[in-house]
Amino acid sequence: MNYSMIRYILFRLMRVMGCLFMLPFVVAIIYKEYDSAVSFLVLAAACSLIGVIGSLKKPANKVIYAKEGFSITAVAWILMSLLGAVPFVITGTIPSYVDAVFETISGLTTTGGSILTTLDGIEYSVQFWRTFTHWIGGMGVLVFLLAIVPMADGYSMHLMRAESPGPVVGKIVPKVKDTAKILYLIYFGITVVEIICLFLSGMPLYDAITISFSTVGTGGFAVNNAGVGGYSVLSQAIIIVFMALCGVNFTVYYFLLNRKPKEAFAIDEVKFYFGTMFLAAALIAVNIYRAGILDNAGLSFHHSLFAVVSVMTTTGFGTLDFDKWPMFSKMILCILSLVGACAGSTGGGFKFSRAIIVVRNFRNELNFIVHPKAIKRVYMDGHTVEGTTVKSVSAYLGLYVMTFIASTIVVALDNFDFQTTVTSVAATLNNIGPGLGMVGPMGNYSEFSVLSKIVLMFDMLAGRLELLPIFIIMKPKTWRR
Amino acid sequence: MNYSMIRYILFRLMRVMGCLFMLPFVVAIIYKEYDSAVSFLVLAAACSLIGVIGSLKKPANKVIYAKEGFSITAVAWILMSLLGAVPFVITGTIPSYVDAVFETISGLTTTGGSILTTLDGIEYSVQFWRTFTHWIGGMGVLVFLLAIVPMADGYSMHLMRAESPGPVVGKIVPKVKDTAKILYLIYFGITVVEIICLFLSGMPLYDAITISFSTVGTGGFAVNNAGVGGYSVLSQAIIIVFMALCGVNFTVYYFLLNRKPKEAFAIDEVKFYFGTMFLAAALIAVNIYRAGILDNAGLSFHHSLFAVVSVMTTTGFGTLDFDKWPMFSKMILCILSLVGACAGSTGGGFKFSRAIIVVRNFRNELNFIVHPKAIKRVYMDGHTVEGTTVKSVSAYLGLYVMTFIASTIVVALDNFDFQTTVTSVAATLNNIGPGLGMVGPMGNYSEFSVLSKIVLMFDMLAGRLELLPIFIIMKPKTWRR
Repeated sequence: MNYSMIRYILFRLMRVMGCLFMLPFVVAIIYKEYDSAVSFLVLAAACSLIGVIGSLKKPANKVIYAKEGFSITAVAWILMSLLGAVPFVITGTIPSYVDAVFETISGLTTTGGSILTTLDGIEYSVQFWRTFTHWIGGMGVLVFLLAIVPMADGYSMHLMRAESPGPVVGKIVPKVKDTAKILYLIYFGITVVEIICLFLSGMPLYDAITISFSTVGTGGFAVNNAGVGGYSVLSQAIIIVFMALCGVNFTVYYFLLNRKPKEAFAIDEVKFYFGTMFLAAALIAVNIYRAGILDNAGLSFHHSLFAVVSVMTTTGFGTLDFDKWPMFSKMILCILSLVGACAGSTGGGFKFSRAIIVVRNFRNELNFIVHPKAIKRVYMDGHTVEGTTVKSVSAYLGLYVMTFIASTIVVALDNFDFQTTVTSVAATLNNIGPGLGMVGPMGNYSEFSVLSKIVLMFDMLAGRLELLPIFIIMKPKTWRR
Repeated sequence: MNYSMIRYILFRLMRVMGCLFMLPFVVAIIYKEYDSAVSFLVLAAACSLIGVIGSLKKPANKVIYAKEGFSITAVAWILMSLLGAVPFVITGTIPSYVDAVFETISGLTTTGGSILTTLDGIEYSVQFWRTFTHWIGGMGVLVFLLAIVPMADGYSMHLMRAESPGPVVGKIVPKVKDTAKILYLIYFGITVVEIICLFLSGMPLYDAITISFSTVGTGGFAVNNAGVGGYSVLSQAIIIVFMALCGVNFTVYYFLLNRKPKEAFAIDEVKFYFGTMFLAAALIAVNIYRAGILDNAGLSFHHSLFAVVSVMTTTGFGTLDFDKWPMFSKMILCILSLVGACAGSTGGGFKFSRAIIVVRNFRNELNFIVHPKAIKRVYMDGHTVEGTTVKSVSAYLGLYVMTFIASTIVVALDNFDFQTTVTSVAATLNNIGPGLGMVGPMGNYSEFSVLSKIVLMFDMLAGRLELLPIFIIMKPKTWRR
């Protein structure tokens, strides 16, 4: 275990956190929230100072392997959550530190489930920080660090693989550093375009910025009690488009920017993603229209598409309370939430690419019985998927199911109804935010016991980091020298 | 595709069905239900006649491959279900043929979920046939046929593999025919011992016989509305023991009979099976005792153990209405039902051996990240599990999850609550019988739409035959010459 490298990266991370706290400081100044401004400034200064001092001495050995990559990622996310929760407590927004950490993890992991029962009276700067955590967590801080921290090349890949979602993490360009820069540029670009679009659609600038953070990070925190339901249909439509775009594998945008539309549209996952999206939206639109939830067919499709995209991208925004929709619609949404978005996007869940590998794998198994001489290979995007990848995906499915099961049992101790128990775990493990029942689009997580909250926090982190990092740091073997 | 062999085996099956219908005929005579006696006799005669005529010409080519093995199994089970439903309709017990087929499939697959709202006034012979379907389906008819039908040796294995539960089907002795005979002898022996024990515990002989059929087949049909809750605690304890025994891999008994206790107790699956059983029973006992469901600690453990064993072995008997227990207990039962019993037992579910392989597989994956040079192998019972088995189990998990998801969406169209929708699929796909909510231990499946019933019938068959056979006959490729 390369402890000095772990230490170094964590202190670099503190420096970054110091910079990040400056943004809500500026917002606090603009809105004349001077008490909070002081808090954010002190925090920013403290983090920067500790970070700079701690990272003065560069490690001699910059080599990190998979083990270090996964451990750094998990520990870094825990550190960010613990630090990010501090503003909520010192500004008095969330008096309990456990709750504040829950809210921060929910933000950073882009889950968007809240323990707040109301958003009334929360300061602008704090709301800004709350939604900004979505933006930070969406692309991942370590990917950002990769772009700025000196690291032995060829090894930084281990860090990127641990933080990036999906079964196979490809470098877009040969150097990891450059890949990280490109990803962040695309991410930044999409955010700016959304802010402009939302502002032009008539949204106040503050809302446009914060809602864009929540959308692009596929988080789901809103800035007032009406949520996204309070904005115009045009604004909502813009949000649909940007949620959908951020659930796509970012490699697509790189290909498009480089005028390689052929490569961009050859990605199987993206085709299934959009196909599923429109099929599900159509089914739900018919279902809610016939059930009399809305008497306008167009609006039925609008709200159905909104809910589908929100759940598939694991954003978790709600325009209508889909907890009141017929079971057929709710079940489709529930299942879409398990699948989630594309690999390499800011969305969560099991990921379409993994689902495709799982389906193609058992289809192979069936074919093999009918044609014992057929060659067992799983194809994707026109290439063979390596056997080790298929094995990893299978192992991932197993670990995912087991995590789900174990969490459900603990949360069941709170003795809420079946729907709430199961969907609260589903909504956190997949980083969606709202589930059904008590944690539905109009509900929140405030009622859970501390034990359940800890389990759900674990699930949010495990879901965002795709299970492995968070399990690896729990193995004592990992920490042996 | 060896069509003549398929035809031959199906007609031999008709002959067996003819013989089986003679048993309820005898019961009808004893209880002077002459109308039903005539019905059963006519059915027995018709099946035997058609069976004998159809199987006069023996096929020249007795070779069957995996494809034929799986197809014969699936088609045979559908044929048995269609035939077995006839007595329910012609005796007027279940007027709707769809419902009658549901009940028969539920019987043969040892699910035990019923569409009957009451058992009052149902004739003894019909009740006998109903529980007898559990006994027939428990060990599997084709395993029985294997013992009596001449087949090219070395190929009958394909039939056995298709009908027997578990990831790896081992022949106990070199010849499949002999293995089948040994399995049926053990099965028959256990049944007789249970009938004697139950009778000695004070149960009426008729009840002792029918309840034994339901127990040994791990089915769950009772013969009166009080169910198993109406019998003495001693009788219930006997039922616990026999349910538990029938959820064990039958190879254990073969080893024990041959005085090889070492081999018998070296089976990992069996250790985990009993370990999980007692741990879960203890947790639930504490939970229901503290929730005040029962004020007697001993009885709490008795009923908790009964529920755990009933659900783990996917029998589905109920002494108390566990739908009214706290969510923690319900969730544990729900999850145990998914895992199910041991491979090579009469119980259903995903099976412990598969769960062990899944867990050990992802544990390997985690180890591999920490120690990239470690050899990735899954061990069970002290041996390495072959890579192809691990792959098959992973594919199975994928197919299982997908079947579950697709079924839930269709059943959701009935717009029942979340709990009922999810657990009705879980209870049928795992051949348990009762779920939670509307299909809880005191509920039934009568309210579902025909579409949902068809899906649930499919799930019961798919669950009993472990998915592959039922999916293979749906592939057009299978039927090409």
